[in-house]
Amino acid sequence: MKRLIVGIDIGGTGTKLGLVDSLGEVIIEEKISTTGEHTFAEFITTLSKIVKQWLLAYPDYEIAGVGVGAPGGNFYTGCITDASNLPWKGSLPLVELLTAELNVPVVLSNDANAATMGEMIFGAAKGMKDFVMITLGTGLGSGIVTGGRLLIGAESLAAELGHVLIKGKGGGRACKCGRKGCLETYVSATGIKRTYLHLLASQGEQSRLSAVPFDQLEAKDIAQAALDGDEIAKKAFVTTGKILGRQLANMVSIVNPEAVFLFGGLASAGDLIFEPTKKYMDANMLNIYKAEVKILPSQLEGANAAIVGAASLVYQYEQDSKEVLA
Amino acid sequence: MKRLIVGIDIGGTGTKLGLVDSLGEVIIEEKISTTGEHTFAEFITTLSKIVKQWLLAYPDYEIAGVGVGAPGGNFYTGCITDASNLPWKGSLPLVELLTAELNVPVVLSNDANAATMGEMIFGAAKGMKDFVMITLGTGLGSGIVTGGRLLIGAESLAAELGHVLIKGKGGGRACKCGRKGCLETYVSATGIKRTYLHLLASQGEQSRLSAVPFDQLEAKDIAQAALDGDEIAKKAFVTTGKILGRQLANMVSIVNPEAVFLFGGLASAGDLIFEPTKKYMDANMLNIYKAEVKILPSQLEGANAAIVGAASLVYQYEQDSKEVLA
Repeated sequence: MKRLIVGIDIGGTGTKLGLVDSLGEVIIEEKISTTGEHTFAEFITTLSKIVKQWLLAYPDYEIAGVGVGAPGGNFYTGCITDASNLPWKGSLPLVELLTAELNVPVVLSNDANAATMGEMIFGAAKGMKDFVMITLGTGLGSGIVTGGRLLIGAESLAAELGHVLIKGKGGGRACKCGRKGCLETYVSATGIKRTYLHLLASQGEQSRLSAVPFDQLEAKDIAQAALDGDEIAKKAFVTTGKILGRQLANMVSIVNPEAVFLFGGLASAGDLIFEPTKKYMDANMLNIYKAEVKILPSQLEGANAAIVGAASLVYQYEQDSKEVLA
Repeated sequence: MKRLIVGIDIGGTGTKLGLVDSLGEVIIEEKISTTGEHTFAEFITTLSKIVKQWLLAYPDYEIAGVGVGAPGGNFYTGCITDASNLPWKGSLPLVELLTAELNVPVVLSNDANAATMGEMIFGAAKGMKDFVMITLGTGLGSGIVTGGRLLIGAESLAAELGHVLIKGKGGGRACKCGRKGCLETYVSATGIKRTYLHLLASQGEQSRLSAVPFDQLEAKDIAQAALDGDEIAKKAFVTTGKILGRQLANMVSIVNPEAVFLFGGLASAGDLIFEPTKKYMDANMLNIYKAEVKILPSQLEGANAAIVGAASLVYQYEQDSKEVLA
């Protein structure tokens, strides 16, 4: 019997789900509104109905499990906890409710960990045992694989690289977390906008983006301006890569990865972000690391990346189960 | 048959070895000079002879393996590589030579990883699956356990926390590694001496240690002066704990440990170092970490800690073997 895994990516507005085969292909998918249901239990019922219909439509397949990526998703408790951008508050028992409906193993983690497992099982990190994934969106998420397994931490809260403080003596940009100087206030779609504005303010040079209101400015506009030769936009990318590269040199000292993957919107700026990041990572790296640490684009980009990543979490569950039985 | 493990701690001047029982007690031990032999092969022969004599003296015991902690010890290759404070250069095939002599599993790692495994198997981290060990000596070493296993890294060079760069824009104190601003130039026995000197220079206050030549000053003198009420010595400890606490807050964001252990000379200053470290770790920690992260003294302190730590590396080997067979 062929194996399929259900991948579910829960986001603030939309939730995507799909059936993923053993090659990482999504054979059927659907998208529902995250905010369309009144209660979390109703939301789970809606998801379950879709999956049950798929099971009827694919009788020759066995469902090996369900992997779910969600903000605040806790690997150990199976609950989504205090996700500020979801419509439900408190601790949401996702694994308990979905298991009761579908009667297969359900694995929950956050979206950055889902992307990380996706890269290892189906993407460019296939065969790697030690790597770091950086997801660049509105904020900066990350996932770490060491010795072939996801670094989860004592409370399922590891790999919050976006909230590493990068200023030696405190200070730095205000972060939504309430502190100052977090890496994601510099390195993210929002961070590069702030850097661009800072450069515009301090350098007084002309920039073709000066006419765009700040709340309409997007990271991709800065990328396009940089490609077109705008000096301030180019400097914004160099500054961003310099800060990221320096922090990646520190990450190398802690987890000694074979490669670092960049995923998400800002990563699609290509050389604009990869070149300064690599340059400053190498320049700041401790000399004992002789093997080159590669900085690579994720190969999970695309509409289905989140579904495939979520489905991949089931592989971590299967690895753990095998060891418990050993 | 009762099980014993051989623990060997190779240092720049002396090498300690002992037989460790399943409770972590050293039942016999010996110390030899590291520099007393001409070649590395002769050194290994001397070690092996001692172990073979022990085997004859304890015929009722089975030797489960040999664990070796050494500067530059590589877990994967089994070689000691470019250890600048050992008398032999290049890549030294320790595991190959010792296995040929003793015909039991031999596991090699660096001394900080040995201390880390020792804490998990026989010390205060027993039962913990996620913790960080900080060894404070001339430099700052560290070891990380995640999900119950040592974080080793792609080239067996993970957990070099002493070489994390702590200054946002570069600069900082010169480090032996050739870079500037490494954590260990601030947080270590040497680091606190530099901080003390800096405070003495910049504040112009009286200190009872002003009469001591810098190259004769030791961290424990600063500790004693602080206990006696010397203001500059007290400030040196607060500054050291502030820098360490802040970096531990960053480590929490990356590995989400249950506890951080402090080991070595500076850690024996007790509250002088533990209080400011805990205070500034808590003050800088991301708010999602609700469970308290404990900062605890190692319980492996004492003359035998290095031997017990080295022996404990065999447990990591045994865990790995079990999984390969699974």
